Amino acid sequence: MSETVQSPASERPEPRERVQDALAEITALLRRHRLVEGLVHEQLKHVPLDDHDERGAVVESLVTRQNKAELQRKLDRLHPADIAYILEALPLDERLYIWELVKADRDGEILLEVSEPVRESLISSMDTDELVAAAESLDAEEIAELAPDLPQEVMDDVFSSLPMEEREELRAAMSFDDDMVGALMDFEDLQVRPDVTLEVVLRYLRRFEELPSQTDQIFVVDRKETLLGVLPMNTLIVSDPETLVADVMRPPVITLRQHEKADDAASAFERYDLVSAPVVDTNDRLVGRVTVDEVLDFVRERGEESMLAQAGLREEEDVFASVWKSFQNRWAWLAVNLVTAFIASRVIGVFEGSIEKLVALAALMPIVAGIGGNSGNQTITMIVRAVALGQVSRGHARGLIRKEIIVALINGLVWGGVMGLFATLLYKDVALGLIMVLAMTLNLMLAASMGVLIPMTMLKLGRDPALGASVLITAVTDSGGFFIFLGLGTLFLIR
Amino acid sequence: MSETVQSPASERPEPRERVQDALAEITALLRRHRLVEGLVHEQLKHVPLDDHDERGAVVESLVTRQNKAELQRKLDRLHPADIAYILEALPLDERLYIWELVKADRDGEILLEVSEPVRESLISSMDTDELVAAAESLDAEEIAELAPDLPQEVMDDVFSSLPMEEREELRAAMSFDDDMVGALMDFEDLQVRPDVTLEVVLRYLRRFEELPSQTDQIFVVDRKETLLGVLPMNTLIVSDPETLVADVMRPPVITLRQHEKADDAASAFERYDLVSAPVVDTNDRLVGRVTVDEVLDFVRERGEESMLAQAGLREEEDVFASVWKSFQNRWAWLAVNLVTAFIASRVIGVFEGSIEKLVALAALMPIVAGIGGNSGNQTITMIVRAVALGQVSRGHARGLIRKEIIVALINGLVWGGVMGLFATLLYKDVALGLIMVLAMTLNLMLAASMGVLIPMTMLKLGRDPALGASVLITAVTDSGGFFIFLGLGTLFLIR
Repeated sequence: MSETVQSPASERPEPRERVQDALAEITALLRRHRLVEGLVHEQLKHVPLDDHDERGAVVESLVTRQNKAELQRKLDRLHPADIAYILEALPLDERLYIWELVKADRDGEILLEVSEPVRESLISSMDTDELVAAAESLDAEEIAELAPDLPQEVMDDVFSSLPMEEREELRAAMSFDDDMVGALMDFEDLQVRPDVTLEVVLRYLRRFEELPSQTDQIFVVDRKETLLGVLPMNTLIVSDPETLVADVMRPPVITLRQHEKADDAASAFERYDLVSAPVVDTNDRLVGRVTVDEVLDFVRERGEESMLAQAGLREEEDVFASVWKSFQNRWAWLAVNLVTAFIASRVIGVFEGSIEKLVALAALMPIVAGIGGNSGNQTITMIVRAVALGQVSRGHARGLIRKEIIVALINGLVWGGVMGLFATLLYKDVALGLIMVLAMTLNLMLAASMGVLIPMTMLKLGRDPALGASVLITAVTDSGGFFIFLGLGTLFLIR
Repeated sequence: MSETVQSPASERPEPRERVQDALAEITALLRRHRLVEGLVHEQLKHVPLDDHDERGAVVESLVTRQNKAELQRKLDRLHPADIAYILEALPLDERLYIWELVKADRDGEILLEVSEPVRESLISSMDTDELVAAAESLDAEEIAELAPDLPQEVMDDVFSSLPMEEREELRAAMSFDDDMVGALMDFEDLQVRPDVTLEVVLRYLRRFEELPSQTDQIFVVDRKETLLGVLPMNTLIVSDPETLVADVMRPPVITLRQHEKADDAASAFERYDLVSAPVVDTNDRLVGRVTVDEVLDFVRERGEESMLAQAGLREEEDVFASVWKSFQNRWAWLAVNLVTAFIASRVIGVFEGSIEKLVALAALMPIVAGIGGNSGNQTITMIVRAVALGQVSRGHARGLIRKEIIVALINGLVWGGVMGLFATLLYKDVALGLIMVLAMTLNLMLAASMGVLIPMTMLKLGRDPALGASVLITAVTDSGGFFIFLGLGTLFLIR
């Protein structure tokens, strides 16, 4: 570790440059360079043609080269994750300009860090050789993460270039879905036997130049690689070196399996404050480990995915994506919305006769539908979340519906009352006001029961309870609200 | 550490019981006990009164005591976080029954782990002495986390019982908002001087029975506690014990300040895969550290908060909360929604004359408004997210609006075209179909521009761009959609 030697105390650690500052500086540099290059090019136009061909080109390329060198020095000092952040924040042309300048040996790491849509834009600018080189600089589980975005020929080349063991690891890592523990797993698990002393363990560790990151414990296995226990690094440090591993090892706080849900693993990390956890196969043989940095990324991505899904975006979208890409990402849910809106419109169509006779119905009906949608969304969000956290099981459905309906009843009487009063005053029609109160209360109660029933039914069917929850509830409360209000209006107000 | 000694190898680590299983078992036990107790009570009614008074009461309390003991044994084996999970998943009466049984010395830890609404329900069942005892079992930064939910007299008692240093730490920890680094910080930072050997450091560490959790590095400070560098535990392990700390210490990957946004700290943890990071004051003096377990909880809570806010829930809600609590949590946003729905209704009111003449307008208008709302929500979600990640700055607004408007134009022509065709066929009116296409396209373009402008304006005003974004955009697209469609209809179709 002698390369990190510092002169003691005199030199204070330089606090890392904030990435926003780096972004601002690089953007400014980039734009100034382009301006300068443009000016030089403009100037050289006035130089006679044959001169331009020779000395002009030299001047021009010199300016460009100096500029590139300045940017490159700046980029070389940044962490791969910071470069990823900067690439994400730049429009496409500037993004590719910077990408060209990044040292090739960091390509792989940076591709891992950028978001998926940006990764696609970067990969499509690289040729096969560059991609193979980038992938080969990574560990098996990291290559597996990139694999879905890499062309088949690149993956073939990478496969054939890997040593046997890593090839197996890559195959294993690629066989898991994104939401399984296997997809979060890495293979950098340090293993020791129970019958050696801590002194031997320490000597073994000192052979490494650097330990794998997030190594807070070593895994104790027998000859068959069966997991026997864990040896926390902190125990290793505070214990007598003569002690046997078996005497200080502990049972792991939790043992994960590759096919478990990543969600459950994430909850375990949160609940027990873990830094790493062992992953075993069905025979209790140690196959790898999951570390908290992967879990943190997973939790953040999950949170974002559900926000995007609620708004009807199919996947993460690069803000600077092309119009065509954006259209593709958004059309599916708009189409679903259109179908439900069309149905609601046909419900109104049935009552056109009533509306013709009492046009106030048309003005008031969106209030009944809208408040139902808002309230139903509140209920469904709360239930979906409780179901996801495992706090609600099927046995609770009846009690929850009862409670939600009572809340809806109160809301309906209070807010329906307010709106009924407005309607009465506006249209000077007490009956219309009363119909308004009744319709709002009924639609809120419909919203409450569907808000519980939809996610509970999804759960029963073994589906993700959040899937399309918002669209379904709005469809019900729109069509339902129009039907209840116009139906009651037709029954009691139209003669 | 001799208390964790195990017989080597023969004993395999027992995989931790899955918390869902524990929940199912405890719920079953609880219900069976109550049933049995009820039956015993029922039986004893038939025993003559004077006998009942003596032997009956003995039998009854014996059964109850046995049952409680069985549950208690089960609970004692569970991790505090698992008990917290179980408490959250039980209706109020069963929750308090279990809470009574939990050993008092774990009260504090469990209160820390449960969600806020559940914490309130538990705290309100405890008296001052119990609360003081629970708080005193915690570290300063943990007490600070509970402080907002504790009665003032409890906090006064706790304050006066703390030693001077911890009192200062508690005061410091309580002075930070939830979203500042200071609120994530703990004080369990191990410190060493640069001019000692690693051997000395190791001897110092061995004096601890156990190191603070999540200790992946020790902080190197001078006499004034100025942070000079960090000594990773893994470097300590792989280096020669004769080496000086100063020779192997490194600059910290990142140094946090107490008043920084917790969001920025969380991004740094994600970006650089940190386990812990030092926190310094304005004079670069080390005041504490932030660990990844706190960051993970923070990220999860942030994600949930924004989902709840989008649905118009003011705060996290206990699914088993009383009707009155639920009403309080939800009424505010329903009221806002009611106002915007009322405005939209008045927009329709202006065109009542047109609707009377052409009632198809009433049936079609919700389609125009609905599709605008859906599309606007897509745009605003994407922009809010990009702004939150710092990928979009004010300079990008114009370019983004242009792009979003083009996407809206395409969506409008495609889906508006489909709907226009339907309208033409349904009502046998080509002009109505064309108005439909035009209105949908215009409302989608309105949704696109507002979807960019609303979060950008919030950003300019220094507000959270997500705040009320969904309500605002829906209000605009509803009123706007009705106005555009009915206005165009009145202009071109009504004579």
